[in-house]
Amino acid sequence: MSKIKVAIVGYGNIGKYALEAVETSGDMECVGVVRRTASADGYPELAGYKVVSDIAELGKVDVAILSTPSRKVQENAEKYLAMGISTVDSFDIHSGVGDLRLTLDAAAKKNNAVSIISAGWDPGSDSIVRALLQALAPGGVSYTNFGPGRSMGHTVVVKSKAGVKDALSLTLPAGKGVHNRLVYVVLEEGADFAAVEAAIKTDPYFASDQTEVKAVPSIDPYNSMMHGVNIVRDGDSGKTADQHIDFNMRINNPALTGQVLVGAARAATRQAPGCYTMIEIPVIDLLEGDRDSLVRKLV
Amino acid sequence: MSKIKVAIVGYGNIGKYALEAVETSGDMECVGVVRRTASADGYPELAGYKVVSDIAELGKVDVAILSTPSRKVQENAEKYLAMGISTVDSFDIHSGVGDLRLTLDAAAKKNNAVSIISAGWDPGSDSIVRALLQALAPGGVSYTNFGPGRSMGHTVVVKSKAGVKDALSLTLPAGKGVHNRLVYVVLEEGADFAAVEAAIKTDPYFASDQTEVKAVPSIDPYNSMMHGVNIVRDGDSGKTADQHIDFNMRINNPALTGQVLVGAARAATRQAPGCYTMIEIPVIDLLEGDRDSLVRKLV
Repeated sequence: MSKIKVAIVGYGNIGKYALEAVETSGDMECVGVVRRTASADGYPELAGYKVVSDIAELGKVDVAILSTPSRKVQENAEKYLAMGISTVDSFDIHSGVGDLRLTLDAAAKKNNAVSIISAGWDPGSDSIVRALLQALAPGGVSYTNFGPGRSMGHTVVVKSKAGVKDALSLTLPAGKGVHNRLVYVVLEEGADFAAVEAAIKTDPYFASDQTEVKAVPSIDPYNSMMHGVNIVRDGDSGKTADQHIDFNMRINNPALTGQVLVGAARAATRQAPGCYTMIEIPVIDLLEGDRDSLVRKLV
Repeated sequence: MSKIKVAIVGYGNIGKYALEAVETSGDMECVGVVRRTASADGYPELAGYKVVSDIAELGKVDVAILSTPSRKVQENAEKYLAMGISTVDSFDIHSGVGDLRLTLDAAAKKNNAVSIISAGWDPGSDSIVRALLQALAPGGVSYTNFGPGRSMGHTVVVKSKAGVKDALSLTLPAGKGVHNRLVYVVLEEGADFAAVEAAIKTDPYFASDQTEVKAVPSIDPYNSMMHGVNIVRDGDSGKTADQHIDFNMRINNPALTGQVLVGAARAATRQAPGCYTMIEIPVIDLLEGDRDSLVRKLV
């Protein structure tokens, strides 16, 4: 059986881990990495791979794994879908998922390709868990509690503030979907801590959360790729109350994202043309192996 | 929008809770209950429903919810599929799922209908969790730890032993997928406890588990519909080890089974003809509501 040919587009943290997940999959192969610089310099693990600036140089590609920032997803996905290449991404702006799905659905169908969006862990596998919990106890409320762990989005916001040389924003779960923020900042020389602290605490990203800001000489001692989540639901199945369900993870954040992207790349080859979120594809399609054996093992 | 017309076939514990779950669903209606006796006697909650011995008396039925014992599932499913009625069941003999799926797949396709099998919580929603955990950390082992709670299958086996008037077999999780058994028996007059104990402990259902048997005057004080599960996986995402994921429930057993059956009945109206296990259908299809809104809320 021929292997699924994937290209990795963008080679930051997520791209690196996605490549590792491809390398541990028996049913797919990486046909190359797409980077603006077309350079493998500084990445010895890319030595055996084509690194190009234009995906067309890679020959046939079944699925492009977009490991670029969320704001670049639509543009890249549209470009590759127009070439008939399916795409997967870990677009993580929750409020934008619904519209992105409709836009890429049209683009995918027009070109007989598949796009699976928001295929990380949240949104992504957590979305599957939330949908499942709602199916099991339709009357009730689910809470998603993140952390402790680094928030990429919040960290970027802090780094954008005047006077901040380096930063790290940790998400601390306070229960019932409420989160506190612990922000480490390395100040630029002469910067005023009180001004930086005020700028962070009044930013919309932080204004509604309890936030603590600490100035430190380096973020290194606090930096970790470990993250976690606790999703909990107490609800009613039919007319029966007090059904308790919870889901928990402690995981290396980019490694899990890379793995989910690779499962989604596999699933992309198994769907009809169109755009899908993770809750719209059968979980079995994420898995390597033949369907009958997987059913016999996992059901 | 017209409601999904469901019939409940069999009216034991599962049927009763499935009916309650239908009654709390805005998009479906119960068009009747099928019982051999065609009688609602003793079930005041059935007063407003047709109770018949032949499903044909109910007019148009979209989906039959089979809440009959597992050993009756194939026969009933084949009968209804042949009439073009889709079926869902909570067939729970894990070793038989693979073959049942292939048999009913042919029957369903021939009659342009859908069959969703093993739609309870295990097999069922737990199967989805196991498939998801394997997708998130493909290198590793998942353990499913049941209980504490009543095992229907083990209880039936104990009740079949000579000298046993009533029984209750509890499943106690011992970790790593190992289970202990705590068996309460009410002896028939003159029965020999030692002989009963030996018959239970040497039965293949119990022989490989640590089993304790206690004679009691009544099982009532120990009887509860509460059950639970803990599914845990420590594995590798790509080349990154030590990803920890777990899933837990404490639930009313038949109430959850009834709810899953009702979600599956909804999903049955959204699949192409054929037979499916729960890991083969998109989780969103279990949920009431329109797709776009569900995506925007849950992803």
